[in-house]
Amino acid sequence: MRGMHSADVLLRSAGTALPGPPIDNAALARRFGMSSTWEQWVDAFVGTRSRHLAVDLETAEVRYSLADLGETAARRALAAAGLGTEAVDVVVLGTSTPDQLMPTTVNVIADRLALNDLPTYQLQSGCTGAVQALDVACRLLAGGGHRTALVIGGDVCAKHYDMSVNPAELPPAQQINGLLFGDGAGAAVLSTDPGTGAPGTTGTAAVRDVRVRFTGMNRPPGQTVEWFGAADRGSDRPGAVEDYKAIEESVPAMAADTLEEMLADLDWKRDDLAFLLPPQLSGRMTARIAERLAVPGAQEVTCVADTGNTGNALPFFQLERALPRMVRGDRALALAVESSKWINAGLALEAV
Amino acid sequence: MRGMHSADVLLRSAGTALPGPPIDNAALARRFGMSSTWEQWVDAFVGTRSRHLAVDLETAEVRYSLADLGETAARRALAAAGLGTEAVDVVVLGTSTPDQLMPTTVNVIADRLALNDLPTYQLQSGCTGAVQALDVACRLLAGGGHRTALVIGGDVCAKHYDMSVNPAELPPAQQINGLLFGDGAGAAVLSTDPGTGAPGTTGTAAVRDVRVRFTGMNRPPGQTVEWFGAADRGSDRPGAVEDYKAIEESVPAMAADTLEEMLADLDWKRDDLAFLLPPQLSGRMTARIAERLAVPGAQEVTCVADTGNTGNALPFFQLERALPRMVRGDRALALAVESSKWINAGLALEAV
Repeated sequence: MRGMHSADVLLRSAGTALPGPPIDNAALARRFGMSSTWEQWVDAFVGTRSRHLAVDLETAEVRYSLADLGETAARRALAAAGLGTEAVDVVVLGTSTPDQLMPTTVNVIADRLALNDLPTYQLQSGCTGAVQALDVACRLLAGGGHRTALVIGGDVCAKHYDMSVNPAELPPAQQINGLLFGDGAGAAVLSTDPGTGAPGTTGTAAVRDVRVRFTGMNRPPGQTVEWFGAADRGSDRPGAVEDYKAIEESVPAMAADTLEEMLADLDWKRDDLAFLLPPQLSGRMTARIAERLAVPGAQEVTCVADTGNTGNALPFFQLERALPRMVRGDRALALAVESSKWINAGLALEAV
Repeated sequence: MRGMHSADVLLRSAGTALPGPPIDNAALARRFGMSSTWEQWVDAFVGTRSRHLAVDLETAEVRYSLADLGETAARRALAAAGLGTEAVDVVVLGTSTPDQLMPTTVNVIADRLALNDLPTYQLQSGCTGAVQALDVACRLLAGGGHRTALVIGGDVCAKHYDMSVNPAELPPAQQINGLLFGDGAGAAVLSTDPGTGAPGTTGTAAVRDVRVRFTGMNRPPGQTVEWFGAADRGSDRPGAVEDYKAIEESVPAMAADTLEEMLADLDWKRDDLAFLLPPQLSGRMTARIAERLAVPGAQEVTCVADTGNTGNALPFFQLERALPRMVRGDRALALAVESSKWINAGLALEAV
């Protein structure tokens, strides 16, 4: 983003969507026959109290697709910006769990929003996907060919949850996936047009920097998620495996690196930050990361303990909470870390 | 791309990689017990003579991953540009068939190329994916924050080929997938740095326009490709279904629309085109599309009859053939169409 000063790219709004009611740890324990000790362990060591799931835990019916949630989040973000779909010039979506390989979910959503004759892009991405999608959209807008971008991020993990498996029999590296993650989608409207600040619209912030850095050279993956095709769907390879220890060790330092690098690039001081939006891995991890980041003057905006880690959606949940609270001149920094193959990412905003 | 005139973005080179030897229609007929009538039908109505596959047809062993082919293509593109990996500032990959959902294949390739501390992006995309990846890379370079981009595109369909199924028993909508597609990867080097034109490097062309337009509103998908997770890998839903009739009807007109729109935007005439790189669906379809495009003065650059439709790799195969033949002032137009949910795309080049 830096280096492009033709026109400020403005974050005009954010909106989100969650499937169904919150599912707390007691409900998970009941459904899967886990002990109350297990429930206490989750509360203490994971610190995520609840999450929302696209799949019905009792019937195994998948009730929401990523397109469903992404469409809702997009409509809410547009409404919060006081814009109709006709204002949208380009759409960028980030996800690790597209509904299908083809057509892409971004195009299914574009169709539902009656968008046509515009560029659309879908990034395959993990927990830095929202920042990556915002980055690509910022570049597209800064180039001057487009005015307003709809950026969407989300994940629906239903295809990964085998409801016929007893989670107590899974190794912890797989068991933990079911606890950490939640389903959801978020969206934001970026524009070089400041708009009229109509009643009912949220605050507006200029994007001062977007940083995305792959840092995975010579580092084994922290998470591996497979997809199966017709040829190998009979395979009993695990679908998703997480090296939670490696993640726990690496993520706080990676977030701290990004904070330092971005502050240096922007010539901002820690004390300049009114809001800090730290990575949202789990309630417990986020607390540790925030402590490590050491920005005591900033208000922390965190939601993971209630939403779970919603992957590509998460920063939108934080932005939705932060934007209306920002007043002119307030600076905010959002940080994200992708741990499958290690990406540092961050977004710097200043309310205008 | 248009509107960004800070510095020309130059296509410095292209490189490609194919798995194993060509597999002709006679070999497919032998392997799957199809008749010689079938073989003649394929020759006449599909017009694709051969393709290369990442899977060994006899043993069903998968011998190449997308990361394998993408890495090779990337190294060849860099060599053709006379550059080492240290010149690369950003990597963009397009594919419809990533090796895994996470980590992304772009990051696996970046690791193998010893690239680190740089932005990487992976687009989920169909047959316009190469143009989409080139578009994103052009925007990133035109913004000025980066100098040289490595752009990769490819597909490996091995996970979709169930070797235990008798293709004669499949409905034509599934049977045709095995004929049309081939596996492969391509890559290109884009840079705002013109380089020295060192001996052994190929020609250089300035990117004059990149166009990507979703046109799928209210149109059913022409192709659907599923992925299965742990929860539904026992499903017997077909992995990939193609509405070949819809594709046959729509693609020539979509390509013609893009040609007209780009010529108008660029203020170029049909006669200005020295090279035409038409969409590469099948030998037969490409011939029909080229006829419809009606640019008799341009040399057609086509490879699909030999490579099959390699999806996200295809335009790189065409660029690899066209670039060394272009002399200063030569104009070329590459067109691509994505038929899963309908995207028109094109790339305009001028040799410098």
